[in-house]
Amino acid sequence: MHLFTSKFVEKSEHVVELPGTVTTPAGFRAAGVAAGIKQSGKLDLGIIISDTPCSSAALYTKNAAAAAPITVSREAEQGGLIGAVVNSGSANACTGSQGIDDARAMAVAATKATGMEPGRLAVASTGVIGVPLPMDKVKAGIAQAAQELSEHGGGDFVAAIQTTDRIDKEGAVEVKLAGGGVHIGACAKGAGMIAPNMATMLTFITTDASVAPGLLHDLLISASASSFNAISVDGDMSTNDCVFLLANGQSGVAIEPKSADRELFQAALSAICRSLALKMVADGEGATKTVEFTVTGAESKEEAAAVAKAISGSPLVRTAFYGQDANWGRIMAAAGAALAGEPQLGVDIFYEGICLARAGAAGPEPSEQNLLSIMSQPEIAVTMDLHRGNAGHAMYFSDLTHDYVTLNAEYTT
Amino acid sequence: MHLFTSKFVEKSEHVVELPGTVTTPAGFRAAGVAAGIKQSGKLDLGIIISDTPCSSAALYTKNAAAAAPITVSREAEQGGLIGAVVNSGSANACTGSQGIDDARAMAVAATKATGMEPGRLAVASTGVIGVPLPMDKVKAGIAQAAQELSEHGGGDFVAAIQTTDRIDKEGAVEVKLAGGGVHIGACAKGAGMIAPNMATMLTFITTDASVAPGLLHDLLISASASSFNAISVDGDMSTNDCVFLLANGQSGVAIEPKSADRELFQAALSAICRSLALKMVADGEGATKTVEFTVTGAESKEEAAAVAKAISGSPLVRTAFYGQDANWGRIMAAAGAALAGEPQLGVDIFYEGICLARAGAAGPEPSEQNLLSIMSQPEIAVTMDLHRGNAGHAMYFSDLTHDYVTLNAEYTT
Repeated sequence: MHLFTSKFVEKSEHVVELPGTVTTPAGFRAAGVAAGIKQSGKLDLGIIISDTPCSSAALYTKNAAAAAPITVSREAEQGGLIGAVVNSGSANACTGSQGIDDARAMAVAATKATGMEPGRLAVASTGVIGVPLPMDKVKAGIAQAAQELSEHGGGDFVAAIQTTDRIDKEGAVEVKLAGGGVHIGACAKGAGMIAPNMATMLTFITTDASVAPGLLHDLLISASASSFNAISVDGDMSTNDCVFLLANGQSGVAIEPKSADRELFQAALSAICRSLALKMVADGEGATKTVEFTVTGAESKEEAAAVAKAISGSPLVRTAFYGQDANWGRIMAAAGAALAGEPQLGVDIFYEGICLARAGAAGPEPSEQNLLSIMSQPEIAVTMDLHRGNAGHAMYFSDLTHDYVTLNAEYTT
Repeated sequence: MHLFTSKFVEKSEHVVELPGTVTTPAGFRAAGVAAGIKQSGKLDLGIIISDTPCSSAALYTKNAAAAAPITVSREAEQGGLIGAVVNSGSANACTGSQGIDDARAMAVAATKATGMEPGRLAVASTGVIGVPLPMDKVKAGIAQAAQELSEHGGGDFVAAIQTTDRIDKEGAVEVKLAGGGVHIGACAKGAGMIAPNMATMLTFITTDASVAPGLLHDLLISASASSFNAISVDGDMSTNDCVFLLANGQSGVAIEPKSADRELFQAALSAICRSLALKMVADGEGATKTVEFTVTGAESKEEAAAVAKAISGSPLVRTAFYGQDANWGRIMAAAGAALAGEPQLGVDIFYEGICLARAGAAGPEPSEQNLLSIMSQPEIAVTMDLHRGNAGHAMYFSDLTHDYVTLNAEYTT
């Protein structure tokens, strides 16, 4: 229930953490039930809705093998979303036209069961791929969940969307704005570098602030850029990733595009998204460490991102962190590969502020004691100055461990 | 001593494998000595030269953090190479201007000791990075190696360039051309996905055929495209990778640009390079399997290569092969990520000819027995038809195993 646990998140004094979740903002109800999709018998079907009309914003995976629910949610989003129906245990991905039909049927069933206006529910799925949904169980679960919708149902909803998550990913805050207090609630599913199956990330964020759809979209884009889009999930988004943000205005406090309140709300939303994303990294399969890798001095934002991504995806770099080895040479090689064909690099590399490489060669000899105390931390900040320009980018990734290999080699779809 | 051990290499009937190595072609001498650069006391310094003028071709890493010897070899190549001086135990990478001076000093010392024309020797290094070469030991080793140069020295030369290699990577062939027989000898250093230190690949190829420099370069480019440039070495070339090809014409048989002999020679050279590259993959840290992944039906060669590269670099895909799990969903997700933003994929996936996915969804249910017999093989061919165009590309990669993590987490520079 604690959102702000990472040293890589700055929380403003205008943000007060509350004991709560996605149903903490006024006017939202949710439920989670066991529909029998998961063989374990655990909660696997959830619904979340706003009781009143609301603004919505959503971001989806760009994966060209995107799952059926992504297609169906994109359609629904055109008319504005007021909620979502979600299942875990089966991803409804790589399921062809049957998958599309099933995702649509989920939305229709949830719409009828909740009495909502047609075509306003998003659909999300996570779990095993390539297998059709057991639609009888799904429909029965939807009917039950609709009955159980409550303002206390956020906890069950979170349980219903999670799969291999070991770290809790939910929370709520009050943001103190000039116009009054508003609430933001959020929950997510996703186990860092990747869940054994598909690395799926699902995130649901609610607020009782009043925000116009266009502004809501801008706020979500900005918050995601430095959170969900800045963590390494095997190099790219999975087939089912999506983020939904609903704003129903029940607080009576409106956020205008050019206002100080917008900045405060953006900061709060960004901190929440960063916190959830970092929990996904920390919860990565077998992960023991989270690395914040900041590239500076790049010629462009794109170049900085390409270098950061190459380093985040390097098995050599990631195993070195697992081994608590401050191996700057592996970082240099990965950066050089990302910038193949460019002039010789003369980069500086710092681990928690200690210079290990200067102008492309070994820096001043650090004390073994200092290095060990840095490398044994669960969160390590590394910066690399390319000395090519003024652009920068930060990414977050976990180490590559024995447990990662065990979990992913022994898991069978 | 056996080059052609992989089912992924086709050897023409015009190629006869010989018991031999890089000094088998007429007119080449080599040596390898223990200069004390490696702490183990093993052979670590080698020289190879042609006794007569020869044509040369070379390919180098494009890494922007390329090591000092790469810079020095590029300079020497301008005048045409007649040999190389090589050390293992220290990569002379990330060593600044001192590194450049040291690499130049190696070439000068070897040139004087062998009595060769100045400026015609390449330099190559592999081993620990960021540490200056022990130049006193290196120079003494060069003097000794120059004394020991012999047509029987190929074996010692190979031993002097290898580090963590467990699989032998050398051999020789006779190619039966219309104009007579010519010999090709080759040796390489490189442990698959990556040696624990830097993934360095060094390859030296000799031939007594007479080939003009321009044609020799074309032959090497073509052979490398389907071998050294088609294996996944952590997504890109390391800081020290290089391939050298020397042709001294001592057989008296010339290869003309537009001739049937050119085709036969190219086929032999390509098969040798493919064999060496596959041995690097099979020798990958902790590797238990080699996968040939062929993408077909792409819109362009570049698209096919991008998809193949994404799949070769996916930890999820690679751990699945380690677990002997024919997990086509992970392949689909990696391909979809590589083609992010493109229309929905409708791909077919085959494991050793057995269809597991058809039009983007699960294919006909294969027998468990068939799958297990395929997935337990040391070499597995997988093909993926994107159904987007007519271009294709094949890549070779190893699985990701517990031993990989152990070797790379516990190794400290």
